[in-house]
Amino acid sequence: MHAYRSHTCADLNKAHVGDTVRLAGWVHRVRDHGGVLFIDLRDHYGITQVLADSDSAAFKDLEKVRSEWVISIEGSVKARDESLVNTKIPTGEIEVYARKVEILGEAGELPLPVFGEPDYPEETRLTYRFLDLRRETLHRNMMLRSNVVRSIRNRMWNEGFNEFQTPIITASSPEGARDFLVPSRLHPGKFYALPQAPQQFKQLIMVAGFDKYFQIAPCFRDEDPRADRSPTDFYQLDVEMSFVRQEDVFAAVQPVIQGVFEEFGGGKTVDPDWPLIAYKDSMLWYGSDKPDLRNPIKMQVVSEHFAGSGFAIFAKLLENAGTQIRAIPAPGGGSRKFCDRMNAFAQQQGLPGMGYIFWRKGDEGLEAAGPLAKNIGPERTEAIRQQLGLGEGDAAFFLGGKPEQFEAVAGRARTEIGRELGLIDETVFKFAWIVDFPMYEKDPETGTIDFSHNPFSMPQGGMEALQGDPLEVLGYQYDLACNGYELVSGAIRNHKPEIMFKAFELAGYGKDEVEKRFGGMVKAFKYGAPPHGGCAAGIDRIVMLLADTANIREVIMFPMNQRAEDLMMNAPSEATNEQLRELRLRVLPPES
Amino acid sequence: MHAYRSHTCADLNKAHVGDTVRLAGWVHRVRDHGGVLFIDLRDHYGITQVLADSDSAAFKDLEKVRSEWVISIEGSVKARDESLVNTKIPTGEIEVYARKVEILGEAGELPLPVFGEPDYPEETRLTYRFLDLRRETLHRNMMLRSNVVRSIRNRMWNEGFNEFQTPIITASSPEGARDFLVPSRLHPGKFYALPQAPQQFKQLIMVAGFDKYFQIAPCFRDEDPRADRSPTDFYQLDVEMSFVRQEDVFAAVQPVIQGVFEEFGGGKTVDPDWPLIAYKDSMLWYGSDKPDLRNPIKMQVVSEHFAGSGFAIFAKLLENAGTQIRAIPAPGGGSRKFCDRMNAFAQQQGLPGMGYIFWRKGDEGLEAAGPLAKNIGPERTEAIRQQLGLGEGDAAFFLGGKPEQFEAVAGRARTEIGRELGLIDETVFKFAWIVDFPMYEKDPETGTIDFSHNPFSMPQGGMEALQGDPLEVLGYQYDLACNGYELVSGAIRNHKPEIMFKAFELAGYGKDEVEKRFGGMVKAFKYGAPPHGGCAAGIDRIVMLLADTANIREVIMFPMNQRAEDLMMNAPSEATNEQLRELRLRVLPPES
Repeated sequence: MHAYRSHTCADLNKAHVGDTVRLAGWVHRVRDHGGVLFIDLRDHYGITQVLADSDSAAFKDLEKVRSEWVISIEGSVKARDESLVNTKIPTGEIEVYARKVEILGEAGELPLPVFGEPDYPEETRLTYRFLDLRRETLHRNMMLRSNVVRSIRNRMWNEGFNEFQTPIITASSPEGARDFLVPSRLHPGKFYALPQAPQQFKQLIMVAGFDKYFQIAPCFRDEDPRADRSPTDFYQLDVEMSFVRQEDVFAAVQPVIQGVFEEFGGGKTVDPDWPLIAYKDSMLWYGSDKPDLRNPIKMQVVSEHFAGSGFAIFAKLLENAGTQIRAIPAPGGGSRKFCDRMNAFAQQQGLPGMGYIFWRKGDEGLEAAGPLAKNIGPERTEAIRQQLGLGEGDAAFFLGGKPEQFEAVAGRARTEIGRELGLIDETVFKFAWIVDFPMYEKDPETGTIDFSHNPFSMPQGGMEALQGDPLEVLGYQYDLACNGYELVSGAIRNHKPEIMFKAFELAGYGKDEVEKRFGGMVKAFKYGAPPHGGCAAGIDRIVMLLADTANIREVIMFPMNQRAEDLMMNAPSEATNEQLRELRLRVLPPES
Repeated sequence: MHAYRSHTCADLNKAHVGDTVRLAGWVHRVRDHGGVLFIDLRDHYGITQVLADSDSAAFKDLEKVRSEWVISIEGSVKARDESLVNTKIPTGEIEVYARKVEILGEAGELPLPVFGEPDYPEETRLTYRFLDLRRETLHRNMMLRSNVVRSIRNRMWNEGFNEFQTPIITASSPEGARDFLVPSRLHPGKFYALPQAPQQFKQLIMVAGFDKYFQIAPCFRDEDPRADRSPTDFYQLDVEMSFVRQEDVFAAVQPVIQGVFEEFGGGKTVDPDWPLIAYKDSMLWYGSDKPDLRNPIKMQVVSEHFAGSGFAIFAKLLENAGTQIRAIPAPGGGSRKFCDRMNAFAQQQGLPGMGYIFWRKGDEGLEAAGPLAKNIGPERTEAIRQQLGLGEGDAAFFLGGKPEQFEAVAGRARTEIGRELGLIDETVFKFAWIVDFPMYEKDPETGTIDFSHNPFSMPQGGMEALQGDPLEVLGYQYDLACNGYELVSGAIRNHKPEIMFKAFELAGYGKDEVEKRFGGMVKAFKYGAPPHGGCAAGIDRIVMLLADTANIREVIMFPMNQRAEDLMMNAPSEATNEQLRELRLRVLPPES
């Protein structure tokens, strides 16, 4: 028999009754039933009940063991009494009568209990991560992550993609976030950088003639703390393809992501219809470029009903160019109490408030209530109701101004309304490709033009489109939204040097600077670059959605805390003088 | 039809004759046969011959294209004349008559030709890596690497291992090489380190209760340049298992490695017999702890035949304690010329020389020649011959002294002799597990005791063994040798804190220092650690063996040069003042 175990703690069942076996694992729980010890022995695979009474040679040693000791026991498999069968675990039909025990690893008093998973401060959990990971929830999350990544890889391979590793010690990347630097010892005073993403490398792989690339790639950004992201690094499914249009990328990615959500969605439905929604429409309809389509509310423009109406605020507003009135329909929200609450929500979000109308049963049938209805009169009110398809018991909220100034709040109000009214279908994953992003945006303060997303995207219409108003230029750039999160982001790339220089020129970057910052890639494009495009999907985000957690540290094996510290390994820490001397670096005192 | 291609450049055959198709790719070669243009169009998948004559609307544009331009052509598939069929490529039966062409990406004058792969300086190749990678050899190597990694992963998964990602931005690791540091911006003056290996993390994963871990893991070491390794990072198949003995690790790893070599060995045989060889025996028999077993030569101790013999040098030598005479049998090496050449080789390697005997046909049958034979006389000579199993036409070389002083040279001489005599079977991969490594070694200069390999290995005999002479202690530590290379290294770990502290104490590390340097792991061992062990296999090395190349840069997509520079991306480079200010670092001038 094996030195430590003949079976795992999930293996034994009625068929083994009478067998002599050996099991090894952690003491999950000990119960002393007056002369009979019951031990739940736990390993990676499951739990088996072990018992010993004073007739057993193992009894004396087993009396000593405490929670989380590691032991190996030898004994014989016994059937449990019918009444004691535990149908919740695969080994619930049997127990093992221990005759020998070996203590493999003792455990001191636990700073963090494993059994029962009581709530504990995150600092303790991170300091004793090796204990925290033994808890069932975290163990399950880690296995989920491992299996999701495996499944993604298999699906990519099956679609003919090849995985290639790109450098981790490299040059600054152009993603625009802050780089982590790595001082060079062989070239003191010079620095490498950790890649913010393998963006340039994957494009170079296409220029090098490999057709379909993917990588589960670590990406590094020196970010300021935020609850739902790691302050140092994250993993992405990085994808790039040659000789493709946007629709080819969608056709390659949908089966992979959809398949993973079907496989690991825990019984939730995955809507197979992934609509393409223009950025402009997404902002109008949902107030977000990552809309939650489980929420059926779709906003609409209702300016015409307010222009010249008796509601002076909106009527005046509409006299200014670029303004709109938009409505958020709220089916089932037809009570003053609810409407007032939502109005208060908008005020919390920094708006003056949301006007509303709600429809109730009046003395003469359907009655529109709320101050707005009175101001614009019954005809306009009815036209609005008909446009929005609302009826008795429903409400509508109204926001006005320049869309860019209230769109985001409108989106949050839509979410809040949907949530409050129970309109969000929690049993489904709904996806949409958001397309036709504008290439450029104007800084509201300085008025300068800059790239709104990835500077490497191909502008729709190519060189010609770049001759007109930059703010009108759309890019072949796309995101995948799922249940209100951005899961994927990508683009068809600008592979023509002359269009690239022009695109950068519009954002104020001279040719020299482009050559300097993205030299490797620009040079490559001069030697036969294929049209290409791709995307990147956030692995951590996908696993968070599937594990149904909003805390990224619940899906990472050894996460940093929010101050970018590894409490278990004690990082970051002081360097030695010798290390600094070799790197020719001096750490300056705080005041300088 | 798709905008760029209806088929790849490897798809078309006789069945497509008459079809209208679209192909896209790189112009591999253009030939102008007086009014008819022949273009070999290349993509990731293959090559298709495209032609056009002056009747074609595409002719004028095709006349412009040069090597490595990217084009898309539309045309019709034609069968080639029987005499022009190229059986070497899958598309060799057909050609495509081009009617339309679109130039997708032009190429300037090439600094490095793709067609024909002429030899070019490595600096040029690395600067224009995207061109170099288009060459057939490198393209094939990258695909080999991608497929090897895929196969390893599948094999590990099929054996029930789970892949987990461990941190890349972390604390200094204890492997003993030089860390790459990463300055922290949120904690100025403090530093992270890139992991030299996930050693501590994988052990913590075991302590956390996950049973079988693997990872294709990037490892980072700030190494001084050497031809056969990357100066910054490498990839390893990292493996760890709980509740195992050494033989369990072997049983898990052999099918994976053997399977990969069988799958990608290019027709070479893989010997399924993987012997276990004790370190001591390996040094004796092969003069190396990574023996090349394709070489049948096995050295032997022949001291007894020289003790008190007429060969005074050896006879005297043997009077000193700890000395030995060892023989390298050289079947087929029985000529004075060969023996002298090998003797000269030993002298080049820093030894005074190797004595030798060779056997030839003499007047009275078998005759032993060489000065050594005369000195020790026919009886001893014959005893040696019989012990070594040699005969006519064979030779034997002799080295004497303290084994540790000549073992390594003996090993190199064994290799040289085997190579010169053509004894090495180039058609096979031969593996051996080298086991029973000593835990400690004595520094020959200072006389201090230090760990000879990994300080985290479990000493054979546990605590008891640590009470005696440290130099006698063997570890549960092992390497896998293949054809003269070390492919895998591993150990059963020391999971008991008290044994660990004792083991470190013997190497001169106090408890405080151990707690400080390996605090995360030591702490974890106090809360229920299972017995565990594992290993790491060098991915780059495996691919090098399978690709039959000695240059590591031939199996890495974007390698550094030997000065740790990325010539294509221009790394390392200067940091900006703002970056340094944020990190509170100053670069010191060279003289300080």
